[in-house]
This record gives sequence, structure tokens and C-alpha cells, in this order.
Amino acid sequence: MTESSVGIIERKYFTFAEPPNEMPLESGEKLGPITLAYETYGALNDRRDNAILITHALSGDSHAAGYYSEKDRKPGWWDFMIGPGRAIDTNKYFVICSNTIAGCQGSTGPSSINPATGKHYNLSFPVITIGDMVRAQTHLIDHLGIEKLLSVIGGSMGGMQTLEWMIEYPDRIASAIPHATTTRLDAQGIAFQEVGRQAIYADPNWHAGNYLEYGVAPEQGLAVARMLAHITYLSEEAMHNKFGRKLQQKERYGYDFSLDFEVESYLRYQGSSFVQRFDANSYLYISKAIDYFDLKQDYGSLEAAFAKVNAKTLVFSFTSDWLFPTEQNKAIVRALKVHRKPVSFVEFDLPYGHDSFLIKNEAQEKVVASFLAHVYE
Amino acid sequence: MTESSVGIIERKYFTFAEPPNEMPLESGEKLGPITLAYETYGALNDRRDNAILITHALSGDSHAAGYYSEKDRKPGWWDFMIGPGRAIDTNKYFVICSNTIAGCQGSTGPSSINPATGKHYNLSFPVITIGDMVRAQTHLIDHLGIEKLLSVIGGSMGGMQTLEWMIEYPDRIASAIPHATTTRLDAQGIAFQEVGRQAIYADPNWHAGNYLEYGVAPEQGLAVARMLAHITYLSEEAMHNKFGRKLQQKERYGYDFSLDFEVESYLRYQGSSFVQRFDANSYLYISKAIDYFDLKQDYGSLEAAFAKVNAKTLVFSFTSDWLFPTEQNKAIVRALKVHRKPVSFVEFDLPYGHDSFLIKNEAQEKVVASFLAHVYE
Repeated sequence: MTESSVGIIERKYFTFAEPPNEMPLESGEKLGPITLAYETYGALNDRRDNAILITHALSGDSHAAGYYSEKDRKPGWWDFMIGPGRAIDTNKYFVICSNTIAGCQGSTGPSSINPATGKHYNLSFPVITIGDMVRAQTHLIDHLGIEKLLSVIGGSMGGMQTLEWMIEYPDRIASAIPHATTTRLDAQGIAFQEVGRQAIYADPNWHAGNYLEYGVAPEQGLAVARMLAHITYLSEEAMHNKFGRKLQQKERYGYDFSLDFEVESYLRYQGSSFVQRFDANSYLYISKAIDYFDLKQDYGSLEAAFAKVNAKTLVFSFTSDWLFPTEQNKAIVRALKVHRKPVSFVEFDLPYGHDSFLIKNEAQEKVVASFLAHVYE
Repeated sequence: MTESSVGIIERKYFTFAEPPNEMPLESGEKLGPITLAYETYGALNDRRDNAILITHALSGDSHAAGYYSEKDRKPGWWDFMIGPGRAIDTNKYFVICSNTIAGCQGSTGPSSINPATGKHYNLSFPVITIGDMVRAQTHLIDHLGIEKLLSVIGGSMGGMQTLEWMIEYPDRIASAIPHATTTRLDAQGIAFQEVGRQAIYADPNWHAGNYLEYGVAPEQGLAVARMLAHITYLSEEAMHNKFGRKLQQKERYGYDFSLDFEVESYLRYQGSSFVQRFDANSYLYISKAIDYFDLKQDYGSLEAAFAKVNAKTLVFSFTSDWLFPTEQNKAIVRALKVHRKPVSFVEFDLPYGHDSFLIKNEAQEKVVASFLAHVYE
């Protein structure tokens, strides 16, 4: 732990939408009770105007910063951004991050017990949307006594949630930082996600979603899904620089199917470590929510979608992100500019691909810090 | 069938490398007997100088042109290029296409019976290389009484074979047309292939490669591998134009995991139709051969690799090919130019991605026809 870490933190839980007051979903179904796992860093000020919500990506969770115990090897997923004196400065701001509904890190999802039946939801869990995720977050923000967030900040699927906040709750946020994101997936993005889902369906341990009843998990299918997704999170250049054609602890090809290249070893590790922490059904539900996100479809046009936004907005993207490239981030900026909304845009020239926002870099830290300072003043 | 089709053709077989004269492989192992399935279109002339060898891509086979029967719905995979009056004009040229070793369409591969044991090879089949594929082809060319080929033509993995012909058998080919290809995969390419292999390994019906003994096939794993590969063969633009976010015969999202988008339906079809015609172990072996192909590693540098080439060469690539982009094709051209070898290069501005070479287009036909006419004169 460094001096600027938020230190040891604790996961908290908030439960709402108790029957008969279930939360309505975009599908037309209802869900309740809903528990959100969340964490907070820093303190809410007396004016209650220094709260920042962090929205996480597909494989993320509420653990954005700090450590659960002294023994933890790794801090939360955006630790370098959040802490005393860091870009999202917990000396100034009260930072909240919650695991999305359908997640598997403490929030209500397909692996939760349905209180109505006493059994795991599994595939009886309703299909949820990015809008549903955000609606659930508004209940948490209410619960925390916050009327208006200083900012909502999220990358990738977190960016989709941030956009949803901007559009659906314009009076509840003062600013927003969507980044490395898109207003909707195109065919290629849906295709990659569908192949990942097919890999899970193909695993006989999936048992049509009922694997928890069998005491197993579709680990191999989920690992394949993760390996594939991971390739799309990296840039070709980053993979070239990190691995190229380097062999894994051998001088020549093995002429067998064990392991030849370092990149193969890396991918297998990514797959096998992911299945230790992630639930396959959650993966299916969250990937579906991403596929369904489509601001143009929902509002008729991107311009119409952003018409009522009040938040000051900072959008950033990365030159090497081929999953949600700069052009797709700029589409947000253009739609806001049509309405003369205050929006800043930065493209960072970094080689790490889509995942660049998750990798410590000073330029990103400075831009976020100064934007937040500006809106907080 | 159109007038310029080669019409009804027949698959032929040639067997060589009978023990004890097995063919040595790059791995150090030996393989024999080896059968190559092949087809020919047109007639060899008296001077035996009009023969063209077509080398196929990962999922290809010997059936490059024509029909096996009147009932066939589809002709061979490059039919639009090969026939009387077509770009590769069977009125002038004698065209040969053979299924590679390790293939599953008649050539000796992992699903073949090993005569030494009376059992399927399965994973006891030796891991082969692009060089081994080409060495096997030289035996077929010898058998057909051809000392020097007028041309070797191949795209993608076929292009790798074409490059191998140029480099290893410089006196046996007068010209070459490698296209949509590369001198070696980089980390991202290997990564995509490894995920495909992992999908096959993960299928319990794979049985560590011994599925034929169980009367099953790892169809779901192979389908996932194919779906993934297929995305890399198309361009983002082509997928956008063809599918975008169009729903599959529905007005609104299904809010379930059946099928929402057309692109999902298309991918599932690609997967399920592929497993009808392709063997999973063949897929593993051929993908490994592609990973191992590395001219820079084998010869010390690309310049050194191409030093002894005698063939007149035409290289072509496609603007929308992100698997083997123009830059990788140009590397071949540059290496040849260092030695002042005769080489032409064309980049076709087509939106179909890597698979563009498999889609009828007049510009490609004209360029190939005129290059061949030039070298034949």
C-alpha cells in the first residue's frame, strides 16, 4: 500500500425493491428484492455535493480502490485513480462504486437465491439492461442521501452507464466522464460477444444455466469467452510489444498441442484466473445488457438522446482502442455539441488498446483531476 | 452451371511415401504413406509448361472449381476464378488443386487410418508445417510429370504455401501469386487461433483427440472456433453493411438468450455448417501449421528468405483485410525488391475483409488474368 491509497475498505450492501415494491425493468418484468454491493471512499461533505459514482465495466465490481485486508496482493481495479491526492481525490470527494445488478460480486444476479422460491435464480433471472443497472444505482444514491452527484465516471460498459445517467437523470448529476465507450455496439461487437456466449452454452457443465444445482461451473466455456474478449481489449501493437512470437520457455517449437508461444500461456492464465472470480451466468446477462444498449434506437437519434443533458461532460478515448475506437467516442461529443452542451474531448495516444483506461497513466490522471476540480469549484 | 464452368469434375488421389520411404517432416518425424486428394481442370500441354497449382486456405480443400454432380448447389471455392475464359483460363492452363496434408477432404490427416496400427491417427499424427504441405505437393507435381509450374497461386494460408514454393523451389515455378497473406502471424493472430483451439479442447466430445473412437465429434467446440475465425475473415464495415444491429425476425429484443440479432443467426449458421464438412483435429493441425510459419525466423530475415526466388511475382491485398493487412503483404514486395526481383503489387479497395479474395470481383480477375498471360507468353 502506498501513502495515497484509500487503505483497507469494506464492502457494504444495500437492499431495496422489497416485494410488493419490486423495481420495474425495461423488459417489462420486475425484480426485487435487489441488493447492491458497494464501496465508498472518502467522506460526504455537509453540502452533500462532493459525491462521485464510479460505474464499472463488464468484468468489474464494486472494488474500485483500496484493499480488503493487509494480505491482499492487489488493490481495487481503479486504485491508481482513486485515493488521497490522486486524480479522484478522496480528500475532496466522496467516491461510490457499486456492483451492477446481474453481477456476481455481491449484487443480486442470476447466482442469487430467489427469495420467492428459495432457489438460485439461474436463467429465471430477468434479462436486464444498462438502463436497469443505472435505475438500481439511483436507489443506492437516494439511500446515501445524495440528491445530485458531482460526477459519474465510467469506461467501456461503465461508460454506457454514465451515458444513461446523463440522459435519464439530467438533474441528478453535475458532470460526467464517459470514456472508452460507445453509444451502441455494431455487428462486429455483437458477434464477438455472441461467440463468447456460445462458448459458455457449449460447455456441458453449463447445464442450460442450472450448473449451481449440479455443484459445477462451465469453467472451460467461460475461460474461452474471457480469452476471446481479452484479445479485443488489447491492441495488436500491445500484443506485439509484449509477446510477439516469443516462445514460452523453449528454444524451438514443441510440435505438439501443449504450449508454444508466450501469448498462449498468457491467454490461458487470463482464462483460468477469470473463472475463479466470475460467474458464467452473470457473464451472459451482462454481455446481453451491453448488446441491447442502443441510444440511437432508444431515442430516435443520437442528437435526440442527448437533448436534455445538463452535465458538464468530459469524453476520452484511446488511439489504440479498436473495440470502441475514438470515432465512437467522438459521436457522443458531436451529439452534445449539436445542443451546445459543455463538453471536452481528449484522445490519449497510448498503445494498450481498449484496456488503456485501466492502466496507470499520468495524462489521464491529470485530465480527470483538473476536470473534476473545475466542476467542483 | 454457366458456360464458363469447368463442369463436372472428379476428385483424384495420389499416394506416395510408402514405407520405408516416408516423407521427412520439419519436426524431425516422418510420415508415410501419404495420400493427396486433388483435382485438375483443363489439360496439360505438350510442352508441360502450362500447369498452375492452386494452394488453399485453412478451411479449403481440393475442390477449387466445378461441380461433383449435377445436383451440387455450389461449385468449388474459387470457381469464379477458374474455368474456360475465366481469369485462370482452363482453355490455356492446366490447373491443379490438392487438399493439404493434415486436411480432412481426402488427403492423409489425423482422421486417416494409420496403416501401421490399423487405427485412426488422431493426435499421433505428426504436427506438420506449411513447408511439409508444400513438400508433399512437389511429389504430386512430379507424379503429374511437371518439372516447372507456370504459377503457384494462393491466398491466406494458401499464400503461405505459395511463398514456400517461391523460396524452397525457385527453379520449379515460373511465377507466383501470393495474396491476402503474411510471412508470419504476430501475437494477435496466434491468440485468435489459440482461442479457437481452446474451444475445441474444451468440448468433452473431443476426448483428447480420440473422438472418432467414441463415434462423436467436438462439434460445439469446432463451431465456436469457426465463428470466432469467421469474424476475423470479415471486415467491420462488411458486417455493418450486411447486418448492423438488425434483429432476426423480431420487432423488439427477446429479453432471453435465444436469438436477437441477425449477425448471431449468421454466425451460428457458419458454425453449424462448418462442422458438417470439417474435422476438428484437422483444424487443430492446420492452425498449428499456420502459427509455426515464420519466414523471418527460418531464414534470419525476410530479405534472406527471398534471396533465391526466381519466380515473377504478383502480390495482392485488400484495404479491408485486418487479419493480414496490406502492410504485411507489402513486406513480401519490399523483400523481393531488395533483390530487384520482378514483383508487382496491387491493393484492391474492397470492403469484404480478409475473405475478399474469395468473393467474385472483376478487378482481381483482370489483374490475375493479365499477369498469367504475361508470364505465359
